[in-house]
Amino acid sequence: MNDDSQTTDEAQIRFLLDAWADALRAKDADKILSLYSPDVVAFDVVPPLQYAGTEAYGRSFRRMFDGFRGPIAFETRDLSVEAGAGVAFSHSLVRTSGTTKSGQEIDRWLRRSLCFRKIAGTWRITHEHVSLPVNLESGNVVLNLQP
Amino acid sequence: MNDDSQTTDEAQIRFLLDAWADALRAKDADKILSLYSPDVVAFDVVPPLQYAGTEAYGRSFRRMFDGFRGPIAFETRDLSVEAGAGVAFSHSLVRTSGTTKSGQEIDRWLRRSLCFRKIAGTWRITHEHVSLPVNLESGNVVLNLQP
Repeated sequence: MNDDSQTTDEAQIRFLLDAWADALRAKDADKILSLYSPDVVAFDVVPPLQYAGTEAYGRSFRRMFDGFRGPIAFETRDLSVEAGAGVAFSHSLVRTSGTTKSGQEIDRWLRRSLCFRKIAGTWRITHEHVSLPVNLESGNVVLNLQP
Repeated sequence: MNDDSQTTDEAQIRFLLDAWADALRAKDADKILSLYSPDVVAFDVVPPLQYAGTEAYGRSFRRMFDGFRGPIAFETRDLSVEAGAGVAFSHSLVRTSGTTKSGQEIDRWLRRSLCFRKIAGTWRITHEHVSLPVNLESGNVVLNLQP
């Protein structure tokens, strides 16, 4: 591994992240799932504790997409990408916003960590962790935090 | 990178994780923090959205340790470690339990993702993400999930 291959790997991962964001905005679950390894392990904002595999995780995306009336807005901040030879990770704060089918305006900053492996020459997401912080005294999710 | 160096890297990371778990059980914040890169970015169960650096993150550990009356029990399940040349990640479900100073029995399964970089020949945690899932309809944290 040299600096050139590192730069290329990082650029490939940033390209993947841009494609993921475009697919989320368009609510295109098939496109999103094509960016994951079939054996992805995902820790989502909502239960269960973990999803195993793109089939199960895909149902979570489709349920979320169905809940929004129109498109979903998506913004990334504080993105950090570290790429090694065949193994990489990224973390960032991400903002999702839109209007639900029941008319509720959603606007949330989430924490997002992604892990990648290069499989047959192509980077794929093998692990995702997305969450909101919680207040353990009150038992409530904390939704109003700004980066 | 060959299979041997990969095995060694993975073994070094598993050793780090065991040292981390022992330090948590002993509530040894200094030992825990020695396993992180000074510029760690951490997404914790509780606010803020993110911690930057071991000084800030260390205050979170000390506050948690102060909240427990005796030792903290810690168990890891479904651990996956992927180590490349200089970049690695792990994810697992972790159980923390113990008795708070106010007498409350705590017993929680959390989701945990860690990212590592090899810095001057030694693996260090450069990113940590620990969370509980939430119910977005009720706004409540979901505490009773079992793996």
